[in-house]
Amino acid sequence: MDMAIKANLSVLALSLLIIGIFSSSPSIALQTSRPTSSKWTPRFLGGHSKPLSQNRQQQPQYQYETRYFSQPLDHFSFSDLPSFPQRYLISTEHWVGAQRLGPIFFYCGNEGDIEWFAANTGFVWEIAPRFGAMVVFPEHRYYGKSMPYGSRDEAYKNATTLSYLTAEQALADFAVLLRELKRDLSAEVSPVVLFGGSYGGMLAAWMRLKYPHVAVGALASSAPILQFEDIVPPETFYDIVSGAFKRESTSCFNTIKESWDVLISESLKNDGLLQLTKTFHLCRTLKRTEDLRDWLDSAYSYLAMVNYPYSSDFLMPLPGHPIREVCRKIDGCPLGTSILERIFEGVSVYYNYTGDFDCFQLDDDPHGMDGWNWQACTEMVMPMSSSWDASMFPTYDYNHSSFQEECWKEFKVKPRPRWITTEFGGHDIKTALKKFGSNIIFSNGLLDPWSGGSVLQNVSETIVALVTEEGAHHIDLRASSSEDPDWLLEQRATEIKLIKGWISDYYQEKKAIIDM
Amino acid sequence: MDMAIKANLSVLALSLLIIGIFSSSPSIALQTSRPTSSKWTPRFLGGHSKPLSQNRQQQPQYQYETRYFSQPLDHFSFSDLPSFPQRYLISTEHWVGAQRLGPIFFYCGNEGDIEWFAANTGFVWEIAPRFGAMVVFPEHRYYGKSMPYGSRDEAYKNATTLSYLTAEQALADFAVLLRELKRDLSAEVSPVVLFGGSYGGMLAAWMRLKYPHVAVGALASSAPILQFEDIVPPETFYDIVSGAFKRESTSCFNTIKESWDVLISESLKNDGLLQLTKTFHLCRTLKRTEDLRDWLDSAYSYLAMVNYPYSSDFLMPLPGHPIREVCRKIDGCPLGTSILERIFEGVSVYYNYTGDFDCFQLDDDPHGMDGWNWQACTEMVMPMSSSWDASMFPTYDYNHSSFQEECWKEFKVKPRPRWITTEFGGHDIKTALKKFGSNIIFSNGLLDPWSGGSVLQNVSETIVALVTEEGAHHIDLRASSSEDPDWLLEQRATEIKLIKGWISDYYQEKKAIIDM
Repeated sequence: MDMAIKANLSVLALSLLIIGIFSSSPSIALQTSRPTSSKWTPRFLGGHSKPLSQNRQQQPQYQYETRYFSQPLDHFSFSDLPSFPQRYLISTEHWVGAQRLGPIFFYCGNEGDIEWFAANTGFVWEIAPRFGAMVVFPEHRYYGKSMPYGSRDEAYKNATTLSYLTAEQALADFAVLLRELKRDLSAEVSPVVLFGGSYGGMLAAWMRLKYPHVAVGALASSAPILQFEDIVPPETFYDIVSGAFKRESTSCFNTIKESWDVLISESLKNDGLLQLTKTFHLCRTLKRTEDLRDWLDSAYSYLAMVNYPYSSDFLMPLPGHPIREVCRKIDGCPLGTSILERIFEGVSVYYNYTGDFDCFQLDDDPHGMDGWNWQACTEMVMPMSSSWDASMFPTYDYNHSSFQEECWKEFKVKPRPRWITTEFGGHDIKTALKKFGSNIIFSNGLLDPWSGGSVLQNVSETIVALVTEEGAHHIDLRASSSEDPDWLLEQRATEIKLIKGWISDYYQEKKAIIDM
Repeated sequence: MDMAIKANLSVLALSLLIIGIFSSSPSIALQTSRPTSSKWTPRFLGGHSKPLSQNRQQQPQYQYETRYFSQPLDHFSFSDLPSFPQRYLISTEHWVGAQRLGPIFFYCGNEGDIEWFAANTGFVWEIAPRFGAMVVFPEHRYYGKSMPYGSRDEAYKNATTLSYLTAEQALADFAVLLRELKRDLSAEVSPVVLFGGSYGGMLAAWMRLKYPHVAVGALASSAPILQFEDIVPPETFYDIVSGAFKRESTSCFNTIKESWDVLISESLKNDGLLQLTKTFHLCRTLKRTEDLRDWLDSAYSYLAMVNYPYSSDFLMPLPGHPIREVCRKIDGCPLGTSILERIFEGVSVYYNYTGDFDCFQLDDDPHGMDGWNWQACTEMVMPMSSSWDASMFPTYDYNHSSFQEECWKEFKVKPRPRWITTEFGGHDIKTALKKFGSNIIFSNGLLDPWSGGSVLQNVSETIVALVTEEGAHHIDLRASSSEDPDWLLEQRATEIKLIKGWISDYYQEKKAIIDM
């Protein structure tokens, strides 16, 4: 691999893990000088559909078969559209079979290559044997190999071809696939348990509301179903990211907060961009300050998400408590070190923990025409602002008109910011869940910036919130490790217990006597 | 009006009231000679969108405003499609207002002109004042004046333009309209009660499952949500129609049952068609036996639906207990009257109760390209057979391949017979309702042939079945009359009590003190 770190690749790959960063984040503009077009130049990303073997890191491998299922492109109309092959990974290795009503563990694939999610969702694989469960990982349409119109290029050609990339269509895909799969296996009566993290967690939770007949329960990890309209304050996300830094060190927080203005003043100097190129060890001369700003912004946001208590190698090799490490670097520079030099030392923990890289290639177009950006510009409108007080990011007030303009420029599409809340419930979704839902676990770690838009309190006896102080983005779904802290072991044990309860209730209903 | 009765118009108009008659009914073919193409010749029907003033009968008038709301043509994709104006009728005359959380009574418009449904759903208008409720009658897309693409001709041009005529889109229309309407009136907190009869009743019930956050309850009258796949036996509908005749008179039942073979033998004679033309007083010479058969078939099926205990003038002026009257005619002919002459005397009760007509114009294409036929050929696949034993109709076994072929011929569309049950639940829909639904009244009269595919037993404490022995198709939704039998008064009183309960529970939840 090239010694110049592919910031590009890493950011993209991480974007599989997160959602909505595109949602008019504060990084769209510094308040002082708004580079309106910088974040929206189109780009066609291949990263999402890269098979595992091409990933930078070798992922842990689980055994499964890869199959394809032919799905209608539009479940809700009868336009004469080509069907598309939905990929799904399936393992029946530990399944006790249809006759014994063996459960089906069904992961709601999210915005990326499903092999990558399968590899990074060890929890499901690890617990399947004790349940005698089949494991199915269906891929989300328009990601990975589940491409309409024959290829990614064709599928992502324009707004018309992309138009069926919606959450409702994905849920319908899951419902149809499950039903046909069960029929093929004569397993119509087998209970289904849904799993999902991040956007996939939202899908799992929504599936409980919209297709209650399909599954017995859902583990929705880090699922920010409240991150729409003004259900939670738009500052939530960046305030939590910032809080994760402040918690480690106020001076670290302050240094970052001050750095944005310094960045701009530096850039306005003679040879400013050249100087910044040197300070940040960029491989190519910096063209626009915003590129550097976005690169930093991304690092902080992703760091908050993967702020795991143990060293991890999700997409970047990182130490345990990586934010603590970043702040240690920022704070620990010798007296007289400039703010930007401190910042560089800090983000190097994120971008270059192994020390393998001599220079950095900025992702000078971290957005553009990828699948999630389309989703953010259509349904998944998650307004985000950055406050002056609590945030260490440049202040920014979400402005829907600008957002809409950018989406039009980018995709020739008009966002429907009130649609998700109309379809799934908005301010009233907790009431709807309480009265009409059951058997959902909303698990969240408070270090995760997405936790602010998630369900953090029990909704009913069967819709429970598992909240961990020290958890980050869907850490519970990851494979177990010898370094797992006690609270994580306990969280997973609770999840297993609850899932067992759902299945055993179901069996009792079915009056089937099965040894679990 | 022309003295030749417009059987055409009457059948069409009645088809507003009923649903699914197109669903590969036994009338598609006589077992003995199957005229495969006879029922499927395309035709563009104007009847459905005719305003009230052009209807044969003047309907009771209620006071409302007519408004239009701009709806996306496809809620579930972001194709660049033109929006369309959804018509809705609204009356705030008795509404106590947003501040007092005045309820909104929302009728789920079905497959026809909404003015017609408004005129024939007196129950909602009559009870609104005592609830201080607003009344809204939204029209179903592709019917009446709610036409995509600017006109009915354009909307019904082909499978592509028709493709957005689906139940899910209609439900989404309702959800979006309600939300925006409530916002405009600052009535976000006002409780919504859904009403619907027949297909509209299905929509109301499904709305409770799919959009539980939108309303507090639904009165789903004569809603055959179980009439899909093999959830109920495919013979159900025609067995019930037949039973309604047998109940009045076994000899009447037998005469009708024997008549089909006689019809065919007569038609095969020299001048057979001419003779049949005379026997049935047709205005024009009969061209195909099937046209006559369908004309008779329709009369029997519709008679069962509107078999009300009092004289009515729904679309045809009819006496109370019209089937009793038909059988009285059939049985009461002088000895020596031929079977076909008896049949003519019988159906004259339906087609010519006023005696105004000297001859009859057959609807020689009772099906063809109307909206409901499209829906039946896409999602609303309701398999129907006719049994030898219990049915008085020609025997017929539902054959999905033939059905599919006919749909392809007619619309160039492929039915998805398993979709509705995947989307809304099939064999398990009662379990789903029990566990995840609440506040639905399934009201049915057992004389109604659609009752067999409806929910006839209480599902839970809040999902109740109101079943009347003597009721026909959604009689409870009709305006009150001095002839209403006691059981109907009781049924409506129960409905009012239940609806009051939903609203008062809601108010209690909202901790609002409102005088009802």
